Amino acid sequence: MKEARIEKVRKWMASAGLDAFIVTEPENRYYLSGFSAEDPIPSEISGFLLITETELAILTDARYGEQAEGEAPDFDVLLYGNEGACETVARVLAESGAKRCAFEDHHLSVETFRAISDALKEMGKSVEFVPARRCVEGMRAVKDEEEIELIRESLQLTESVMEEVLHLLGKGLSERDIAWFTERRMRETGAEALAFPPIVASGPRSALPHASPTHRIPGLGEPVVIDIGARKNRYCSDMTRTFFLGQIPRKWIERYKIVREAQMAAQEAIKPGIMTDQVDRIARKIIEDAGYGDLFGHGLGHGVGLAVHELPRLRKSSSTMLEPNMIVTVEPGIYFKGEGGIRLENMVRVTEGGFEILNRKSLFILED
Amino acid sequence: MKEARIEKVRKWMASAGLDAFIVTEPENRYYLSGFSAEDPIPSEISGFLLITETELAILTDARYGEQAEGEAPDFDVLLYGNEGACETVARVLAESGAKRCAFEDHHLSVETFRAISDALKEMGKSVEFVPARRCVEGMRAVKDEEEIELIRESLQLTESVMEEVLHLLGKGLSERDIAWFTERRMRETGAEALAFPPIVASGPRSALPHASPTHRIPGLGEPVVIDIGARKNRYCSDMTRTFFLGQIPRKWIERYKIVREAQMAAQEAIKPGIMTDQVDRIARKIIEDAGYGDLFGHGLGHGVGLAVHELPRLRKSSSTMLEPNMIVTVEPGIYFKGEGGIRLENMVRVTEGGFEILNRKSLFILED
Repeated sequence: MKEARIEKVRKWMASAGLDAFIVTEPENRYYLSGFSAEDPIPSEISGFLLITETELAILTDARYGEQAEGEAPDFDVLLYGNEGACETVARVLAESGAKRCAFEDHHLSVETFRAISDALKEMGKSVEFVPARRCVEGMRAVKDEEEIELIRESLQLTESVMEEVLHLLGKGLSERDIAWFTERRMRETGAEALAFPPIVASGPRSALPHASPTHRIPGLGEPVVIDIGARKNRYCSDMTRTFFLGQIPRKWIERYKIVREAQMAAQEAIKPGIMTDQVDRIARKIIEDAGYGDLFGHGLGHGVGLAVHELPRLRKSSSTMLEPNMIVTVEPGIYFKGEGGIRLENMVRVTEGGFEILNRKSLFILED
Repeated sequence: MKEARIEKVRKWMASAGLDAFIVTEPENRYYLSGFSAEDPIPSEISGFLLITETELAILTDARYGEQAEGEAPDFDVLLYGNEGACETVARVLAESGAKRCAFEDHHLSVETFRAISDALKEMGKSVEFVPARRCVEGMRAVKDEEEIELIRESLQLTESVMEEVLHLLGKGLSERDIAWFTERRMRETGAEALAFPPIVASGPRSALPHASPTHRIPGLGEPVVIDIGARKNRYCSDMTRTFFLGQIPRKWIERYKIVREAQMAAQEAIKPGIMTDQVDRIARKIIEDAGYGDLFGHGLGHGVGLAVHELPRLRKSSSTMLEPNMIVTVEPGIYFKGEGGIRLENMVRVTEGGFEILNRKSLFILED
């Protein structure tokens, strides 16, 4: 598995005229090496992969050395000396003789990049740095069979918790109580972590697509947007449903149907060869035609895998061709400021002939 | 509170000849504005603060607009147009007339920085960008009274959970079970989040300072390192104890005493005016003299506040003068590869006359 991935990276390097590649994005590190350390904060990098035509190395500090050796047997583990991380990276890079090195410019901070560059200059070495243009993220967008199975398991876990939530509504719990319930149940049923902090937003707060849960208790007839996801065996899932306590007011029935219609139309359009912005367009058109175009202020969806937001992006400004075994969310929403919102989100796999909805439970409150 | 902080930032800007400052680090954003959104992933920035001599603005996208308005009343909230985030930042910066702008080079990615620079160039504007050199982090290192109170509360919560863990050992739970127990109890007793993923490492795994919990069940006479921290009302705490099931083998008693001695000596040295590397040196010397210098492979401690790792750093390579109301951890450790490790961590406040240990419960297994 890892060998095939490294092989692919080296082919890309050869075709792009690169003789080295520094990988720092934590999921990319794991994907290519098995080294699973996370970065405590973005500016604290727990390890650098250095890939050349002949070498595979992890540069890390003493705290992670043993872990790296155990998890990444194909890689040489080199610990930073007293010289510091960036100086070690520069030295090892210089020793490899590399002239043209890719780096992850979307992950590496300006400070770290400059420190590595400056250390090379001080050694009198000149290395040309080239942005990797999300090479590894592009590979990760297409899942292999094992990954698909892990994502299915992760989503099943999330769905079971979502079903529990449905039975919990109306018991007087606050948004925070419900959020904590989802988190606790995910962990108790086998998730090692959340894919992201749960969104539980009721009434006017559901008009905020990324609302943090508050002490508010959902009231009768109000939308309650629940957007949750587990991480199990490293793979993420992501699912949103909008529920109501008691009767659903007529205006919300109409709005719900529009979002659901947009979701289904987009799902059905998914197949190899279609462009991501086209899929976004199909959902957006339905919402626009209903007069709510301005109220759908985010993209239609995103890839899910080791990260909960990954490639490809389904949105207006992203034009990627869908390929078999990409896995994406389809999650249109409309948001009425001060009043509330509706969002519905499934996970969909691109198949050879079209699409497969990975969700097993419907949990939509209106029959289609 | 926020006004005083902005005032301080503007004084720094004036003294450094800066007419604008872009703040992107999430805790810094919160500290200066109250806008509490987190970044889903480091390369997805949920908002940019723009501070000039006369303006205060948050640039964000439609998903966070309402939240920003509610949380940061002193700031104008400007949504990205169709032009995209970096282009909006560049435009607003250009419109402000700024010529010399600070940015957080330890946080901003090379990609985002280049996109903003390129957008300015396309507009024919020239702005000189200057690293902010952790200006806001430096301010955050010294806590005000409200912050000290919040940190005390956060640590008390963590200590209560640590005490529960002590009573739980020997019940056959695995590292992962114990980790999940600490997480669940923190959340149930008022933490909104963990400050960091719990470390529960037993036997040989305790030789890994940053071990992830496994299904391993701690055995008799083995060290169990528990390093946990809550986040409550946004403020973090951080505490480590090393426990043993049953009798403590003689060799571990000796090692434990050395770590504890190093910790106490360092704590007692803390006072305004002492340098961070001096404090590290005091603990390190004791461990070196005991013959274990090579086995203490990390720094002695770090500041704690909105982030669990913040300034100042207590380590060999960091020379900062301690000031009253800085709050730092003191956490020496020694690690025997393949065998196990000991780490002990308190939180300490620098007072006008010396130091105050913020921990209320001892929970050391050997009397001093």
